[in-house]
Amino acid sequence: MNKTSAVFYHAGCPVCLDAESAITRYLDPTTINLEVVHLGTAKNRLPEAEAAGVKSVPALVVGGQTLHLNFGAALSALK
Amino acid sequence: MNKTSAVFYHAGCPVCLDAESAITRYLDPTTINLEVVHLGTAKNRLPEAEAAGVKSVPALVVGGQTLHLNFGAALSALK
Repeated sequence: MNKTSAVFYHAGCPVCLDAESAITRYLDPTTINLEVVHLGTAKNRLPEAEAAGVKSVPALVVGGQTLHLNFGAALSALK
Repeated sequence: MNKTSAVFYHAGCPVCLDAESAITRYLDPTTINLEVVHLGTAKNRLPEAEAAGVKSVPALVVGGQTLHLNFGAALSALK
């Protein structure tokens, strides 16, 4: 079975780190290839996150869905 | 290893169903015991959700963390 690619976008904020620890602990590694992207440092990934519908971080994009996990920072604050 | 208990709270809304499909597909079944609770019908579970810090649905409570996934409905709207 091909794994599903998932991207977890964050910005290093406390809310982001809490969500990241849950995501990295509990997502199924046998079905998910997880990439973690820090949008505060990797600003070149902002357009891609926006295109996926990410409005704030932390957010997880997986299988065509964009899930905002709590609220750390608006994407516009990272530009 | 003991599995971690997780509860996914929802209210049958479209945003809830989208989040549920991601959660149930991608959480690791070898580490997580997932319970799905519909707060619109199981109103007796509202106090427990509130106590866990759930402010809106859909939300996932896992390992002591409460993650709100996007926004479907405020908990107060379900009472």
